[in-house]
Amino acid sequence: MMEKLSEHGCFGGTLAYYKHASNELGCDMRFTVFIPSHGEGKKLPVVTYLAGLTCTEDNFTTKAGAYRIAAECGLVLVAPDTSPRGDHVPDEEAWDFGKGAGFYIDATQSPWDKNYKMYSYITQELNNLIVENFPVDGKRQGIFGHSMGGHGALTIYLKNPDIYKSVSAFSPIVAPTECPWGHKALGKYLGNDQKLWAAHDATVLMKELGDASARPMILIDQGLSDPFLEEQLKPHLFEEACASVNQKLTLRRHKGYDHGYFFIQTFMEDHIRHHGKIL
Amino acid sequence: MMEKLSEHGCFGGTLAYYKHASNELGCDMRFTVFIPSHGEGKKLPVVTYLAGLTCTEDNFTTKAGAYRIAAECGLVLVAPDTSPRGDHVPDEEAWDFGKGAGFYIDATQSPWDKNYKMYSYITQELNNLIVENFPVDGKRQGIFGHSMGGHGALTIYLKNPDIYKSVSAFSPIVAPTECPWGHKALGKYLGNDQKLWAAHDATVLMKELGDASARPMILIDQGLSDPFLEEQLKPHLFEEACASVNQKLTLRRHKGYDHGYFFIQTFMEDHIRHHGKIL
Repeated sequence: MMEKLSEHGCFGGTLAYYKHASNELGCDMRFTVFIPSHGEGKKLPVVTYLAGLTCTEDNFTTKAGAYRIAAECGLVLVAPDTSPRGDHVPDEEAWDFGKGAGFYIDATQSPWDKNYKMYSYITQELNNLIVENFPVDGKRQGIFGHSMGGHGALTIYLKNPDIYKSVSAFSPIVAPTECPWGHKALGKYLGNDQKLWAAHDATVLMKELGDASARPMILIDQGLSDPFLEEQLKPHLFEEACASVNQKLTLRRHKGYDHGYFFIQTFMEDHIRHHGKIL
Repeated sequence: MMEKLSEHGCFGGTLAYYKHASNELGCDMRFTVFIPSHGEGKKLPVVTYLAGLTCTEDNFTTKAGAYRIAAECGLVLVAPDTSPRGDHVPDEEAWDFGKGAGFYIDATQSPWDKNYKMYSYITQELNNLIVENFPVDGKRQGIFGHSMGGHGALTIYLKNPDIYKSVSAFSPIVAPTECPWGHKALGKYLGNDQKLWAAHDATVLMKELGDASARPMILIDQGLSDPFLEEQLKPHLFEEACASVNQKLTLRRHKGYDHGYFFIQTFMEDHIRHHGKIL
Protein backbone atom coordinates (compact mmCIF):
# COMPACT_ATOMS: atom_id res chain seq x y z
CA MET A 1 0.00 0.00 0.00
CA MET A 2 2.74 2.38 1.03
CA GLU A 3 6.09 2.39 -0.75
CA LYS A 4 9.28 3.83 0.73
CA LEU A 5 11.03 5.69 -2.09
CA SER A 6 14.19 6.60 -0.21
CA GLU A 7 15.55 6.96 3.31
CA HIS A 8 18.31 9.25 4.54
CA GLY A 9 20.16 9.60 7.81
CA CYS A 10 19.42 13.04 9.25
CA PHE A 11 20.40 14.47 12.66
CA GLY A 12 20.63 11.02 14.24
CA GLY A 13 17.19 10.00 12.91
CA THR A 14 15.83 9.20 9.47
CA LEU A 15 14.05 11.21 6.80
CA ALA A 16 12.14 9.09 4.30
CA TYR A 17 10.06 9.74 1.19
CA TYR A 18 6.92 7.63 0.68
CA LYS A 19 4.37 7.10 -2.06
CA HIS A 20 0.91 5.57 -1.65
CA ALA A 21 -2.30 5.17 -3.63
CA SER A 22 -4.81 7.54 -2.03
CA ASN A 23 -8.44 6.37 -2.07
CA GLU A 24 -9.65 9.79 -0.99
CA LEU A 25 -7.89 11.63 -3.81
CA GLY A 26 -7.95 8.92 -6.48
CA CYS A 27 -4.26 9.27 -7.25
CA ASP A 28 -0.76 8.43 -6.03
CA MET A 29 0.46 10.80 -3.34
CA ARG A 30 3.87 11.45 -1.83
CA PHE A 31 4.82 12.54 1.65
CA THR A 32 7.90 12.58 3.86
CA VAL A 33 8.35 11.49 7.47
CA PHE A 34 11.16 12.42 9.83
CA ILE A 35 11.64 10.00 12.73
CA PRO A 36 14.09 11.11 15.40
CA SER A 37 16.27 8.66 17.25
CA HIS A 38 14.08 7.15 19.99
CA GLY A 39 13.86 4.25 22.41
CA GLU A 40 12.46 0.99 21.03
CA GLY A 41 8.67 0.75 21.29
CA LYS A 42 8.33 4.42 22.19
CA LYS A 43 5.45 6.40 20.66
CA LEU A 44 6.36 9.98 19.76
CA PRO A 45 4.27 13.10 19.28
CA VAL A 46 3.77 13.97 15.61
CA VAL A 47 3.39 17.32 13.84
CA THR A 48 2.13 17.68 10.26
CA TYR A 49 3.28 20.58 8.07
CA LEU A 50 1.04 21.86 5.27
CA ALA A 51 2.85 23.73 2.52
CA GLY A 52 1.65 26.63 0.40
CA LEU A 53 0.57 27.33 -3.18
CA THR A 54 2.72 25.66 -5.89
CA CYS A 55 4.49 23.52 -3.29
CA THR A 56 4.97 19.77 -2.94
CA GLU A 57 6.13 17.66 0.00
CA ASP A 58 9.68 18.67 -0.88
CA ASN A 59 9.62 22.39 -0.04
CA PHE A 60 9.42 21.88 3.70
CA THR A 61 11.53 18.75 3.59
CA THR A 62 14.53 20.33 1.88
CA LYS A 63 14.27 24.02 2.80
CA ALA A 64 12.73 24.49 6.24
CA GLY A 65 15.65 23.40 8.43
CA ALA A 66 13.26 21.76 10.91
CA TYR A 67 14.88 18.40 11.59
CA ARG A 68 17.66 19.54 13.91
CA ILE A 69 15.17 20.78 16.50
CA ALA A 70 12.68 17.97 15.86
CA ALA A 71 15.50 15.54 16.66
CA GLU A 72 16.24 17.44 19.85
CA CYS A 73 12.56 17.65 20.89
CA GLY A 74 11.74 14.06 19.90
CA LEU A 75 9.01 15.00 17.41
CA VAL A 76 7.98 13.11 14.28
CA LEU A 77 7.41 15.52 11.37
CA VAL A 78 5.13 14.68 8.43
CA ALA A 79 5.09 16.70 5.19
CA PRO A 80 2.40 15.81 2.63
CA ASP A 81 1.94 17.16 -0.88
CA THR A 82 -0.52 20.07 -1.29
CA SER A 83 -2.95 18.68 -3.86
CA PRO A 84 -3.86 15.59 -5.89
CA ARG A 85 -1.43 14.74 -8.69
CA GLY A 86 -1.46 12.90 -12.00
CA ASP A 87 -2.40 13.40 -15.64
CA HIS A 88 -5.99 12.29 -14.93
CA VAL A 89 -6.51 14.94 -12.23
CA PRO A 90 -8.36 18.02 -13.53
CA ASP A 91 -6.31 21.20 -13.56
CA GLU A 92 -6.23 24.76 -14.83
CA GLU A 93 -3.30 26.73 -16.13
CA ALA A 94 -2.95 28.71 -12.94
CA TRP A 95 -0.43 28.65 -10.11
CA ASP A 96 -3.05 29.54 -7.51
CA PHE A 97 -5.73 26.99 -8.42
CA GLY A 98 -5.85 23.27 -9.24
CA LYS A 99 -2.70 21.18 -8.89
CA GLY A 100 -0.41 22.62 -6.24
CA ALA A 101 -3.35 24.54 -4.78
CA GLY A 102 -5.64 22.02 -3.06
CA PHE A 103 -6.48 24.53 -0.30
CA TYR A 104 -7.04 21.72 2.24
CA ILE A 105 -10.79 21.52 1.59
CA ASP A 106 -13.13 18.90 0.06
CA ALA A 107 -14.38 20.17 -3.29
CA THR A 108 -18.08 19.77 -4.04
CA GLN A 109 -18.14 21.18 -7.58
CA SER A 110 -17.46 19.26 -10.79
CA PRO A 111 -14.85 18.47 -12.07
CA TRP A 112 -12.89 19.14 -8.86
CA ASP A 113 -15.01 16.96 -6.56
CA LYS A 114 -13.52 13.69 -7.83
CA ASN A 115 -9.95 14.33 -6.62
CA TYR A 116 -9.72 17.55 -4.63
CA LYS A 117 -10.43 16.17 -1.14
CA MET A 118 -7.39 17.42 0.71
CA TYR A 119 -9.32 18.07 3.94
CA SER A 120 -10.39 14.44 4.26
CA TYR A 121 -7.03 13.26 3.00
CA ILE A 122 -5.08 15.09 5.70
CA THR A 123 -7.43 14.57 8.63
CA GLN A 124 -8.43 10.95 7.90
CA GLU A 125 -6.54 8.96 5.29
CA LEU A 126 -3.03 10.31 5.84
CA ASN A 127 -3.62 10.63 9.57
CA ASN A 128 -4.61 6.95 9.81
CA LEU A 129 -1.68 5.90 7.65
CA ILE A 130 0.77 7.75 9.88
CA VAL A 131 -0.67 6.49 13.16
CA GLU A 132 -0.78 2.90 11.93
CA ASN A 133 2.66 2.73 10.31
CA PHE A 134 5.00 4.89 12.36
CA PRO A 135 6.08 5.11 16.00
CA VAL A 136 3.68 7.94 16.83
CA ASP A 137 1.16 8.67 19.57
CA GLY A 138 -2.06 9.62 17.75
CA LYS A 139 -3.26 11.44 20.87
CA ARG A 140 -0.38 13.90 20.69
CA GLN A 141 -0.64 15.56 17.30
CA GLY A 142 0.02 19.08 16.14
CA ILE A 143 -0.31 20.83 12.80
CA PHE A 144 1.35 23.82 11.20
CA GLY A 145 1.86 25.32 7.79
CA HIS A 146 2.74 28.22 5.51
CA SER A 147 0.48 30.58 3.57
CA MET A 148 -2.25 28.34 2.04
CA GLY A 149 -0.91 25.68 4.41
CA GLY A 150 -1.23 28.09 7.33
CA HIS A 151 -4.90 28.41 6.37
CA GLY A 152 -5.07 24.62 6.23
CA ALA A 153 -3.40 24.20 9.61
CA LEU A 154 -5.56 26.78 11.42
CA THR A 155 -8.88 25.54 9.97
CA ILE A 156 -8.07 21.85 10.40
CA TYR A 157 -6.95 22.50 13.99
CA LEU A 158 -10.10 24.44 14.83
CA LYS A 159 -12.40 21.82 13.26
CA ASN A 160 -10.66 18.78 14.76
CA PRO A 161 -9.81 19.41 18.41
CA ASP A 162 -10.02 15.68 19.03
CA ILE A 163 -7.02 15.09 16.74
CA TYR A 164 -4.81 18.19 16.83
CA LYS A 165 -3.69 19.67 20.14
CA SER A 166 -1.31 22.37 18.92
CA VAL A 167 -1.14 24.73 15.94
CA SER A 168 1.13 27.37 14.48
CA ALA A 169 1.56 29.10 11.13
CA PHE A 170 3.94 31.12 8.97
CA SER A 171 2.29 33.94 6.99
CA PRO A 172 -1.10 32.18 6.89
CA ILE A 173 -4.14 33.04 4.82
CA VAL A 174 -6.35 33.65 7.86
CA ALA A 175 -9.53 34.82 6.12
CA PRO A 176 -10.01 33.18 2.71
CA THR A 177 -13.55 34.59 2.48
CA GLU A 178 -11.95 38.05 2.37
CA CYS A 179 -9.06 37.70 -0.07
CA PRO A 180 -8.60 36.98 -3.81
CA TRP A 181 -6.82 33.62 -3.36
CA GLY A 182 -9.64 32.43 -1.12
CA HIS A 183 -12.43 33.73 -3.36
CA LYS A 184 -10.94 31.94 -6.36
CA ALA A 185 -10.36 28.61 -4.59
CA LEU A 186 -13.53 28.50 -2.50
CA GLY A 187 -15.68 29.70 -5.41
CA LYS A 188 -14.44 27.01 -7.77
CA TYR A 189 -14.10 24.13 -5.29
CA LEU A 190 -17.27 24.86 -3.25
CA GLY A 191 -19.44 26.92 -5.61
CA ASN A 192 -20.67 30.47 -5.42
CA ASP A 193 -22.79 30.21 -2.26
CA GLN A 194 -20.53 32.18 0.06
CA LYS A 195 -22.36 30.86 3.15
CA LEU A 196 -20.62 27.53 2.52
CA TRP A 197 -17.20 29.14 2.51
CA ALA A 198 -17.32 30.17 6.16
CA ALA A 199 -16.68 26.61 7.34
CA HIS A 200 -13.14 26.94 5.93
CA ASP A 201 -12.27 30.41 7.18
CA ALA A 202 -10.06 30.41 10.30
CA THR A 203 -11.21 33.89 11.32
CA VAL A 204 -14.90 32.92 11.14
CA LEU A 205 -14.25 29.63 12.93
CA MET A 206 -12.32 31.39 15.69
CA LYS A 207 -15.14 33.86 16.35
CA GLU A 208 -17.56 30.96 16.77
CA LEU A 209 -15.44 29.14 19.35
CA GLY A 210 -16.98 30.63 22.44
CA ASP A 211 -14.61 31.33 25.32
CA ALA A 212 -11.19 30.00 24.28
CA SER A 213 -9.18 31.20 27.25
CA ALA A 214 -8.31 27.66 28.36
CA ARG A 215 -6.98 26.60 24.95
CA PRO A 216 -3.22 26.53 24.23
CA MET A 217 -1.51 29.49 22.68
CA ILE A 218 -1.41 29.84 18.90
CA LEU A 219 1.88 31.00 17.33
CA ILE A 220 1.95 32.95 14.05
CA ASP A 221 4.97 34.58 12.40
CA GLN A 222 4.52 37.11 9.62
CA GLY A 223 7.14 38.99 7.60
CA LEU A 224 6.52 42.69 7.05
CA SER A 225 8.22 42.59 3.62
CA ASP A 226 5.80 39.89 2.50
CA PRO A 227 4.29 41.06 -0.81
CA PHE A 228 1.02 39.22 -0.04
CA LEU A 229 0.52 40.71 3.42
CA GLU A 230 -2.10 43.36 2.74
CA GLU A 231 -4.14 41.88 -0.08
CA GLN A 232 -4.13 38.18 0.78
CA LEU A 233 -3.00 37.44 4.34
CA LYS A 234 -4.49 40.10 6.65
CA PRO A 235 -3.36 38.64 9.97
CA HIS A 236 -5.05 41.46 11.89
CA LEU A 237 -8.43 39.88 11.11
CA PHE A 238 -7.42 36.70 12.92
CA GLU A 239 -5.86 38.72 15.71
CA GLU A 240 -9.18 40.49 16.28
CA ALA A 241 -11.08 37.21 16.16
CA CYS A 242 -8.77 35.66 18.77
CA ALA A 243 -9.16 38.68 21.02
CA SER A 244 -12.95 38.44 20.76
CA VAL A 245 -12.97 34.93 22.29
CA ASN A 246 -9.95 35.27 24.60
CA GLN A 247 -7.81 32.93 22.49
CA LYS A 248 -4.13 33.37 23.42
CA LEU A 249 -2.24 34.35 20.29
CA THR A 250 1.42 35.20 19.75
CA LEU A 251 1.43 37.04 16.42
CA ARG A 252 4.92 38.29 15.63
CA ARG A 253 5.49 40.77 12.81
CA HIS A 254 9.09 40.72 11.51
CA LYS A 255 10.69 43.64 9.75
CA GLY A 256 12.76 42.70 6.69
CA TYR A 257 11.33 39.22 6.14
CA ASP A 258 9.34 38.12 3.09
CA HIS A 259 7.10 35.16 2.21
CA GLY A 260 9.76 32.52 1.49
CA TYR A 261 11.71 29.74 3.14
CA PHE A 262 14.60 31.96 4.29
CA PHE A 263 11.96 33.61 6.51
CA ILE A 264 10.49 30.25 7.52
CA GLN A 265 13.84 28.66 8.43
CA THR A 266 14.70 31.69 10.56
CA PHE A 267 11.74 31.11 12.88
CA MET A 268 11.32 27.35 12.48
CA GLU A 269 13.02 26.57 15.78
CA ASP A 270 10.42 28.55 17.73
CA HIS A 271 7.59 26.69 16.00
CA ILE A 272 9.02 23.23 16.64
CA ARG A 273 9.59 24.14 20.30
CA HIS A 274 6.03 25.55 20.50
CA HIS A 275 4.59 22.19 19.42
CA GLY A 276 7.05 20.22 21.52
CA LYS A 277 6.03 22.16 24.63
CA ILE A 278 2.28 21.63 24.12
CA LEU A 279 2.52 17.99 23.01
CA MET B 1 28.51 44.65 -13.63
CA MET B 2 26.86 42.72 -10.81
CA GLU B 3 23.08 42.52 -10.58
CA LYS B 4 21.21 41.68 -7.40
CA LEU B 5 18.39 39.32 -8.41
CA SER B 6 16.71 39.08 -5.03
CA GLU B 7 17.36 39.64 -1.34
CA HIS B 8 15.77 37.89 1.63
CA GLY B 9 15.85 38.42 5.36
CA CYS B 10 17.47 35.36 6.97
CA PHE B 11 18.47 34.84 10.64
CA GLY B 12 18.84 38.56 11.24
CA GLY B 13 21.04 39.04 8.16
CA THR B 14 20.39 38.91 4.43
CA LEU B 15 20.70 36.23 1.78
CA ALA B 16 20.91 37.59 -1.76
CA TYR B 17 21.15 36.09 -5.25
CA TYR B 18 23.44 37.83 -7.75
CA LYS B 19 24.19 37.54 -11.46
CA HIS B 20 27.26 38.89 -13.24
CA ALA B 21 28.98 38.62 -16.61
CA SER B 22 32.12 36.55 -16.02
CA ASN B 23 35.13 37.44 -18.18
CA GLU B 24 36.92 34.30 -17.11
CA LEU B 25 34.10 31.97 -18.11
CA GLY B 26 32.61 33.97 -20.98
CA CYS B 27 29.07 33.68 -19.66
CA ASP B 28 26.66 35.00 -17.05
CA MET B 29 27.15 33.41 -13.65
CA ARG B 30 25.04 33.34 -10.52
CA PHE B 31 26.08 33.15 -6.89
CA THR B 32 24.56 33.82 -3.49
CA VAL B 33 25.94 35.75 -0.52
CA PHE B 34 24.80 35.58 3.09
CA ILE B 35 25.72 38.61 5.18
CA PRO B 36 25.06 38.33 8.89
CA SER B 37 23.96 41.28 10.96
CA HIS B 38 27.12 43.26 11.78
CA GLY B 39 28.38 46.59 12.99
CA GLU B 40 28.65 49.35 10.39
CA GLY B 41 32.00 49.41 8.61
CA LYS B 42 33.00 46.04 10.04
CA LYS B 43 34.81 43.58 7.74
CA LEU B 44 33.82 39.96 8.30
CA PRO B 45 35.57 36.67 7.55
CA VAL B 46 34.17 34.93 4.47
CA VAL B 47 33.82 31.25 3.58
CA THR B 48 33.10 30.00 0.05
CA TYR B 49 31.18 26.76 -0.50
CA LEU B 50 31.77 24.72 -3.66
CA ALA B 51 28.92 22.37 -4.58
CA GLY B 52 29.07 18.99 -6.28
CA LEU B 53 28.22 17.42 -9.64
CA THR B 54 24.88 18.54 -11.16
CA CYS B 55 24.55 21.34 -8.59
CA THR B 56 24.08 25.08 -8.94
CA GLU B 57 24.44 27.89 -6.41
CA ASP B 58 21.02 26.92 -5.08
CA ASN B 59 21.72 23.50 -3.56
CA PHE B 60 23.80 24.85 -0.69
CA THR B 61 21.71 28.00 -0.42
CA THR B 62 18.37 26.28 0.06
CA LYS B 63 19.29 22.89 1.54
CA ALA B 64 22.41 23.12 3.72
CA GLY B 65 20.94 24.89 6.75
CA ALA B 66 24.15 26.89 7.22
CA TYR B 67 22.90 30.42 7.83
CA ARG B 68 21.77 30.05 11.45
CA ILE B 69 25.31 29.26 12.60
CA ALA B 70 26.93 31.68 10.15
CA ALA B 71 24.78 34.41 11.70
CA GLU B 72 25.89 33.36 15.16
CA CYS B 73 29.59 33.15 14.18
CA GLY B 74 29.53 36.35 12.11
CA LEU B 75 30.67 34.68 8.87
CA VAL B 76 29.84 35.74 5.32
CA LEU B 77 28.99 32.69 3.17
CA VAL B 78 29.40 32.68 -0.62
CA ALA B 79 27.92 29.96 -2.85
CA PRO B 80 28.84 30.06 -6.55
CA ASP B 81 27.55 27.89 -9.39
CA THR B 82 29.64 24.82 -10.30
CA SER B 83 30.33 25.43 -14.00
CA PRO B 84 29.86 27.89 -16.85
CA ARG B 85 26.29 28.22 -18.14
CA GLY B 86 24.50 29.25 -21.32
CA ASP B 87 23.47 27.85 -24.70
CA HIS B 88 26.83 28.86 -26.19
CA VAL B 89 28.83 26.89 -23.61
CA PRO B 90 29.96 23.47 -24.91
CA ASP B 91 28.40 20.52 -23.15
CA GLU B 92 27.92 16.76 -23.34
CA GLU B 93 24.87 14.74 -22.47
CA ALA B 94 26.35 13.60 -19.17
CA TRP B 95 25.61 14.48 -15.56
CA ASP B 96 29.27 14.03 -14.57
CA PHE B 97 30.92 16.13 -17.27
CA GLY B 98 30.34 19.53 -18.87
CA LYS B 99 27.68 21.86 -17.46
CA GLY B 100 27.18 21.21 -13.76
CA ALA B 101 30.59 19.51 -13.60
CA GLY B 102 33.26 22.20 -13.93
CA PHE B 103 35.57 20.36 -11.50
CA TYR B 104 37.14 23.64 -10.34
CA ILE B 105 40.02 23.45 -12.82
CA ASP B 106 41.05 25.48 -15.89
CA ALA B 107 40.50 23.39 -19.02
CA THR B 108 43.28 23.37 -21.63
CA GLN B 109 41.59 21.18 -24.24
CA SER B 110 39.24 22.34 -27.00
CA PRO B 111 36.31 22.97 -26.92
CA TRP B 112 36.32 23.19 -23.10
CA ASP B 113 39.16 25.71 -22.78
CA LYS B 114 36.99 28.67 -23.84
CA ASN B 115 34.62 28.56 -20.86
CA TYR B 116 35.65 25.93 -18.35
CA LYS B 117 37.96 28.03 -16.16
CA MET B 118 36.39 27.44 -12.76
CA TYR B 119 39.73 27.44 -10.93
CA SER B 120 40.57 30.97 -12.04
CA TYR B 121 36.97 32.04 -11.65
CA ILE B 122 36.78 31.00 -7.99
CA THR B 123 40.27 32.05 -6.90
CA GLN B 124 40.51 35.31 -8.84
CA GLU B 125 37.42 36.76 -10.51
CA LEU B 126 34.79 35.81 -7.94
CA ASN B 127 37.22 36.32 -5.09
CA ASN B 128 37.94 39.89 -6.24
CA LEU B 129 34.26 40.58 -6.77
CA ILE B 130 33.42 39.46 -3.24
CA VAL B 131 36.24 41.34 -1.56
CA GLU B 132 35.46 44.55 -3.47
CA ASN B 133 31.70 44.55 -3.09
CA PHE B 134 30.88 43.08 0.29
CA PRO B 135 31.82 43.79 3.92
CA VAL B 136 34.50 41.08 4.04
CA ASP B 137 38.09 40.85 5.17
CA GLY B 138 39.98 39.30 2.25
CA LYS B 139 42.72 38.19 4.64
CA ARG B 140 40.32 35.93 6.53
CA GLN B 141 38.93 33.51 3.98
CA GLY B 142 38.01 29.86 4.17
CA ILE B 143 36.70 27.38 1.64
CA PHE B 144 34.64 24.19 1.86
CA GLY B 145 32.56 21.99 -0.36
CA HIS B 146 30.84 18.70 -1.12
CA SER B 147 31.95 15.81 -3.33
CA MET B 148 33.36 17.45 -6.52
CA GLY B 149 33.23 20.68 -4.49
CA GLY B 150 35.16 19.00 -1.68
CA HIS B 151 37.84 18.24 -4.27
CA GLY B 152 37.67 21.87 -5.35
CA ALA B 153 37.94 23.17 -1.79
CA LEU B 154 40.89 20.95 -0.81
CA THR B 155 42.91 21.60 -3.97
CA ILE B 156 42.19 25.33 -4.06
CA TYR B 157 43.12 25.62 -0.37
CA LEU B 158 46.38 23.72 -0.84
CA LYS B 159 47.36 25.75 -3.92
CA ASN B 160 46.44 29.17 -2.49
CA PRO B 161 47.62 29.45 1.11
CA ASP B 162 47.86 33.22 0.66
CA ILE B 163 44.09 33.44 0.14
CA TYR B 164 42.45 30.60 2.07
CA LYS B 165 43.27 30.00 5.73
CA SER B 166 40.77 27.23 6.56
CA VAL B 167 39.26 24.27 4.73
CA SER B 168 36.73 21.51 5.30
CA ALA B 169 34.77 19.08 3.14
CA PHE B 170 31.78 16.78 3.03
CA SER B 171 32.38 13.46 1.20
CA PRO B 172 35.09 14.95 -1.03
CA ILE B 173 36.70 13.42 -4.09
CA VAL B 174 40.20 13.39 -2.56
CA ALA B 175 42.12 11.65 -5.35
CA PRO B 176 40.69 12.43 -8.81
CA THR B 177 43.68 10.79 -10.48
CA GLU B 178 42.49 7.52 -8.95
CA CYS B 179 38.72 7.46 -9.57
CA PRO B 180 36.39 7.32 -12.60
CA TRP B 181 34.87 10.80 -12.11
CA GLY B 182 38.35 12.29 -11.96
CA HIS B 183 39.69 10.35 -14.94
CA LYS B 184 36.76 11.48 -17.07
CA ALA B 185 36.95 15.14 -16.08
CA LEU B 186 40.73 15.55 -16.01
CA GLY B 187 41.16 13.56 -19.22
CA LYS B 188 38.72 15.71 -21.16
CA TYR B 189 39.51 19.11 -19.62
CA LEU B 190 43.33 18.67 -19.39
CA GLY B 191 44.09 15.98 -21.96
CA ASN B 192 45.49 12.49 -21.63
CA ASP B 193 48.89 13.34 -20.14
CA GLN B 194 48.27 12.12 -16.61
CA LYS B 195 51.32 13.99 -15.28
CA LEU B 196 49.31 17.19 -15.68
CA TRP B 197 46.46 15.85 -13.57
CA ALA B 198 48.51 15.68 -10.37
CA ALA B 199 48.33 19.46 -9.89
CA HIS B 200 44.60 19.04 -9.19
CA ASP B 201 44.71 16.01 -6.91
CA ALA B 202 44.43 16.86 -3.19
CA THR B 203 46.14 13.67 -2.12
CA VAL B 204 49.15 14.32 -4.37
CA LEU B 205 49.29 17.98 -3.33
CA MET B 206 49.17 17.05 0.35
CA LYS B 207 52.08 14.60 0.02
CA GLU B 208 54.18 17.38 -1.55
CA LEU B 209 53.53 19.87 1.26
CA GLY B 210 56.53 19.05 3.37
CA ASP B 211 56.02 19.20 7.13
CA ALA B 212 52.47 20.45 7.71
CA SER B 213 52.35 20.09 11.47
CA ALA B 214 51.93 23.85 12.00
CA ARG B 215 48.97 24.19 9.63
CA PRO B 216 45.40 24.32 10.95
CA MET B 217 43.33 21.18 11.21
CA ILE B 218 41.33 19.98 8.22
CA LEU B 219 37.79 18.70 8.87
CA ILE B 220 36.19 16.05 6.64
CA ASP B 221 32.86 14.28 7.19
CA GLN B 222 31.99 11.14 5.25
CA GLY B 223 28.82 9.02 5.36
CA LEU B 224 29.33 5.26 5.44
CA SER B 225 26.13 4.66 3.43
CA ASP B 226 27.45 6.88 0.65
CA PRO B 227 27.14 4.87 -2.60
CA PHE B 228 30.21 6.64 -4.04
CA LEU B 229 32.49 5.97 -1.09
CA GLU B 230 34.57 3.06 -2.39
CA GLU B 231 34.78 3.72 -6.11
CA GLN B 232 34.98 7.52 -6.24
CA LEU B 233 35.77 9.12 -2.88
CA LYS B 234 38.40 6.96 -1.12
CA PRO B 235 39.03 9.24 1.88
CA HIS B 236 41.66 6.83 3.26
CA LEU B 237 44.04 7.98 0.51
CA PHE B 238 43.89 11.55 1.78
CA GLU B 239 44.11 10.33 5.37
CA GLU B 240 47.37 8.52 4.55
CA ALA B 241 48.72 11.57 2.71
CA CYS B 242 47.96 13.83 5.69
CA ALA B 243 49.65 11.40 8.05
CA SER B 244 52.74 11.32 5.84
CA VAL B 245 53.30 15.08 6.27
CA ASN B 246 51.94 15.49 9.81
CA GLN B 247 48.86 17.41 8.62
CA LYS B 248 46.22 17.44 11.38
CA LEU B 249 43.03 15.87 9.99
CA THR B 250 39.68 15.16 11.61
CA LEU B 251 38.09 12.60 9.28
CA ARG B 252 34.78 11.43 10.70
CA ARG B 253 33.02 8.40 9.22
CA HIS B 254 29.29 8.39 9.98
CA LYS B 255 27.19 5.23 10.00
CA GLY B 256 23.77 5.57 8.34
CA TYR B 257 24.52 8.72 6.32
CA ASP B 258 24.59 8.95 2.53
CA HIS B 259 25.86 11.47 -0.04
CA GLY B 260 23.05 14.03 0.13
CA TYR B 261 22.04 17.25 1.84
CA PHE B 262 20.30 15.55 4.79
CA PHE B 263 23.81 14.30 5.67
CA ILE B 264 25.35 17.69 4.96
CA GLN B 265 22.86 19.67 7.05
CA THR B 266 23.39 17.28 9.97
CA PHE B 267 27.08 18.17 10.25
CA MET B 268 27.00 21.71 8.81
CA GLU B 269 27.16 23.35 12.23
CA ASP B 270 30.51 21.71 12.99
CA HIS B 271 31.95 22.92 9.68
CA ILE B 272 30.82 26.51 10.14
CA ARG B 273 32.26 26.55 13.67
CA HIS B 274 35.50 24.99 12.35
CA HIS B 275 35.97 27.90 9.94
CA GLY B 276 34.80 30.45 12.48
CA LYS B 277 37.37 29.23 14.99
CA ILE B 278 40.31 29.39 12.53
CA LEU B 279 39.30 32.68 10.87
